[in-house]
Amino acid sequence: MTITDEVTVNGVDTATLFATLTAVKAAPEAAQFQFRASNEWISGTHNRSTIGGYFGVGEERAHERVFQFDADHPAVLVGQDNAPTPVEFVLHALAACLTAGIANIAAARGVRLTEVTSTVTGDIDLNGVLGLDPDVRKGYEKITVRFAIKGDAPAEKLRAIVERSRTMSAVYDVLTAGVPVAIEIDTP
Amino acid sequence: MTITDEVTVNGVDTATLFATLTAVKAAPEAAQFQFRASNEWISGTHNRSTIGGYFGVGEERAHERVFQFDADHPAVLVGQDNAPTPVEFVLHALAACLTAGIANIAAARGVRLTEVTSTVTGDIDLNGVLGLDPDVRKGYEKITVRFAIKGDAPAEKLRAIVERSRTMSAVYDVLTAGVPVAIEIDTP
Repeated sequence: MTITDEVTVNGVDTATLFATLTAVKAAPEAAQFQFRASNEWISGTHNRSTIGGYFGVGEERAHERVFQFDADHPAVLVGQDNAPTPVEFVLHALAACLTAGIANIAAARGVRLTEVTSTVTGDIDLNGVLGLDPDVRKGYEKITVRFAIKGDAPAEKLRAIVERSRTMSAVYDVLTAGVPVAIEIDTP
Repeated sequence: MTITDEVTVNGVDTATLFATLTAVKAAPEAAQFQFRASNEWISGTHNRSTIGGYFGVGEERAHERVFQFDADHPAVLVGQDNAPTPVEFVLHALAACLTAGIANIAAARGVRLTEVTSTVTGDIDLNGVLGLDPDVRKGYEKITVRFAIKGDAPAEKLRAIVERSRTMSAVYDVLTAGVPVAIEIDTP
């Protein structure tokens, strides 16, 4: 790994990045995070999540501001199209996680990126969620991410950065390997 | 399943819902959908996804408007906190998918809901993504969804609606069972 002399590469403050790694190495419990979203049903398939607080580096924290995101279904799926579908937010999360990793890893390797774009597609047979065919799974059958990446390094080095980001991505990990999900229900 | 006489329940047009099911049953290929997001790196861990077009019911379609969502890391994770983290969008997607299902299923069963709220938490040990401990996974170790649901039905019926939504949810399915993700890379 070649570490650049300059502190900020690709908008990544590499001095802070390496200082953070050193600090967590010395105190691994600082890396225990809990992220949260609270959601409120509005009407039909339309609902809204609020993302504000989280736990990390040993204490309760808050984002700089509170974020809210709606979700809905389009009219062809019996919604009002007020917002993207839940499954489209999964694609956003995947692209965003891989891209953030690419920027960090490139910075750590001293590679100056000029462009990173991607298109994520998710193929789904809705006979599953509609309950019309029990042999069809409910979720995506496959997801494909296509990256275009440019920077001051040979193609092989750029490819290796994307590949490293894949192996280090939290969202890629949960989507490909799965994660236990517990559901608790409070009723009146 | 008790089908209500009224057409709109919980903001769900049940006549359209059942008509859609009948139409897809007659032409299962209409249920082949492809959802998409395109993402552009901005700086550091900050990037932006655009969600507009999708394929479904046999043709290219577009949402009523084009949606854009940023993602970033907070300062403690070497970002600028311009937006939630990618992993928080996963929690939004899960809450939204389960909640939309609850509204639809309740409507189909003639149950009038008055409140559906949820809090989703995701526990993650960032020693994984930071590359500090190879034995720690990169993604969430576990996700917990806690629903509060109220409506004109006994607690057991409300619980059964949530449980049915869980088994029918596309996002729950991909998160718990995993999905194949292919990554393609274009370099200059």
